[in-house]
Amino acid sequence: MSEFFSFKLNKTERGARLGEFVIRGKKIETPVFMPVASQATVKTLTSDEIRQIGFDIILSNTYHLYLRPGIETIESLGGLHRYMNWDGGILTDSGGYQVFSLLRLRKLTDEGVVFRSHIDGSEHLLTPELAVQYQESLGSDIAMVLDECPAHDESIEKTRLSINRTHLWAKRCLDSHSRVNQVLFAIVQGGVYSELRRESADYLTSLDFPGYAIGGLSIGEPKEVTGEVIDATIPYLPKNKPRYLMGVGSPEDLFEGVSRGIDMFDSALPTRVARNGSLFTSKGRVNISNARFTKMEEPVDPECDCYCCRTLSSSYLHHLFNTKELLAYRLATLHNLTFINRLMKKIRASINEGTFNSYKTEFLSGYRTTNEQVRVSQKEKWLKSQQLKEN
Amino acid sequence: MSEFFSFKLNKTERGARLGEFVIRGKKIETPVFMPVASQATVKTLTSDEIRQIGFDIILSNTYHLYLRPGIETIESLGGLHRYMNWDGGILTDSGGYQVFSLLRLRKLTDEGVVFRSHIDGSEHLLTPELAVQYQESLGSDIAMVLDECPAHDESIEKTRLSINRTHLWAKRCLDSHSRVNQVLFAIVQGGVYSELRRESADYLTSLDFPGYAIGGLSIGEPKEVTGEVIDATIPYLPKNKPRYLMGVGSPEDLFEGVSRGIDMFDSALPTRVARNGSLFTSKGRVNISNARFTKMEEPVDPECDCYCCRTLSSSYLHHLFNTKELLAYRLATLHNLTFINRLMKKIRASINEGTFNSYKTEFLSGYRTTNEQVRVSQKEKWLKSQQLKEN
Repeated sequence: MSEFFSFKLNKTERGARLGEFVIRGKKIETPVFMPVASQATVKTLTSDEIRQIGFDIILSNTYHLYLRPGIETIESLGGLHRYMNWDGGILTDSGGYQVFSLLRLRKLTDEGVVFRSHIDGSEHLLTPELAVQYQESLGSDIAMVLDECPAHDESIEKTRLSINRTHLWAKRCLDSHSRVNQVLFAIVQGGVYSELRRESADYLTSLDFPGYAIGGLSIGEPKEVTGEVIDATIPYLPKNKPRYLMGVGSPEDLFEGVSRGIDMFDSALPTRVARNGSLFTSKGRVNISNARFTKMEEPVDPECDCYCCRTLSSSYLHHLFNTKELLAYRLATLHNLTFINRLMKKIRASINEGTFNSYKTEFLSGYRTTNEQVRVSQKEKWLKSQQLKEN
Repeated sequence: MSEFFSFKLNKTERGARLGEFVIRGKKIETPVFMPVASQATVKTLTSDEIRQIGFDIILSNTYHLYLRPGIETIESLGGLHRYMNWDGGILTDSGGYQVFSLLRLRKLTDEGVVFRSHIDGSEHLLTPELAVQYQESLGSDIAMVLDECPAHDESIEKTRLSINRTHLWAKRCLDSHSRVNQVLFAIVQGGVYSELRRESADYLTSLDFPGYAIGGLSIGEPKEVTGEVIDATIPYLPKNKPRYLMGVGSPEDLFEGVSRGIDMFDSALPTRVARNGSLFTSKGRVNISNARFTKMEEPVDPECDCYCCRTLSSSYLHHLFNTKELLAYRLATLHNLTFINRLMKKIRASINEGTFNSYKTEFLSGYRTTNEQVRVSQKEKWLKSQQLKEN
């Protein structure tokens, strides 16, 4: 690892790991959740607010920034940190997920992938080398390799072909990466097939990346499959390097990930559901649009110390959603991210105290998760709506 | 005037007045601009942010709050201040303007007015007594009488009939008003007719209200008419009471109003145009969506100390508008209100120093106002779109 980046493990409790990495001289404790700022903003919030909530690192997206405002614009204005006035860590996704999962794919060869813009339908080429170059120009702290992300229900034969290309691309990304103050993480693929996940982990760790992501999950597969695939991958990842589970998200999934040895998470779920009025509480998600909140004086979550819960009634937030006031989406986002940040803090503290497993049991016993079937069908509906809207 | 409310004049420079009123023990310097929070939120911003910008008093709207969340809901939760977590002053409009100007009128008699909800088309009765009762329940600091607001191109005969009813209603509002920690302001009407404005001012001042608004302006009439009507009204208003010009707004109009002796203003213009990307600068309004901002590093207004101008490039704000990110509307609103607040501060300081007239000349000489004809046709278009949308 470079001077710029280091990772160390401080403690473990069964599978769960407490660690820290240092980026640009700044310490970031793990397990860590990264809010999603695809278009250089965590939707509805300022960078100052993200910092005030307590987050140290965010995720942004090469695909979105490439299309708007353009990589060159951000580079010419001093890079992504300065562009969005964020002095914390930034991880950029390569754009692979956006290109593959949302049916924007036009032509796929070993050289790279031609995709259509979701904005104007124009065609663009993305290669491993370009993905690295764009992320170097953006100046993120952690860049991701370009990977091929097959559907969760893809056959084993096709998935095998797909990881071969992912491996080829990972190597080319590594060879072309040259920015000193940036590290490049690999992405393990292999669909739902344990043997392919192991093969992918084995090959990528042989290239000695400073960190490893597990990709191609949380894209519509049932939750027990997600857990099985993580379990089938983790043993083949080096202990002394950070492990990043891409696209996860919900409180219950964060516990599952941490207990399996994951160090980093990102997901748009907390912010996306917030804008639909769905708010995290220690008892589960509640929808503020529900009529029972019409005249409720208590805050949404009396245990929460966010601006909204400290100073405003549930009735007021209900009213803002009911009247489609833009302030509604801000307050709900602020609340959900505050909830997730507090959860991650408690998770870290519990690992430190050796009580993670009992904390997990306690939390999940009181937390009503979204019904699994409802969840899967909601996710499928959402993915479909994105494809229709954006293509 | 009550213990609760007092007004005093500290200085004048030709027509311009520097004064202060005290509400609930808090001093508010005039001339003052009140941001509009029709639905109990200044669109996109929190009450804390309104306070941080420097505003002491805001306007909210009985019509909107009556429909959603309902007067009773706000009353049961401790009144409007507490509901929106705002400890500054609140002036509530009676709803007259909303009922009359936006074609929601169904039936008008001396008793009151039946209007249709812009939300579900349901019919509701509003009487002078109900308007007062609702505002007492909301607990605003300044309530407004229910008035009839004729169109600016209404005939003199019909306008005369209309002010008769306005006067009848003003008296009934006064008679039914009983809340101690709230004052009730009258509204002078009379369309574009000087003699009617004088008549209206004479009658209403004979009732000895603690403050007087000039209503029925800035509703589509040419700007020179607005000025003439103000000039025809002001001489008949008492010197020792605050004068409030309803629905005004733009930097140039604020100067005109102040120079004619107005003490209070409200307008949704600064926040409404902000959400369209139109930002105040000392040189006039600029639209951030313009391509010239695509890569501009400088802030929108280098003289501004708002969060947006202090920390973010024009390019970033342009990008947020271009991608329809919700943060865009917040930052633009924050900027425009910061601009207006700074302008009012400078106006007050200049009256204090006896340099208001030269400051006005200096400001307006550098400020490109929206072309008059363009402005009128834009306003008409907007009013029409509101009527279509909301009816």
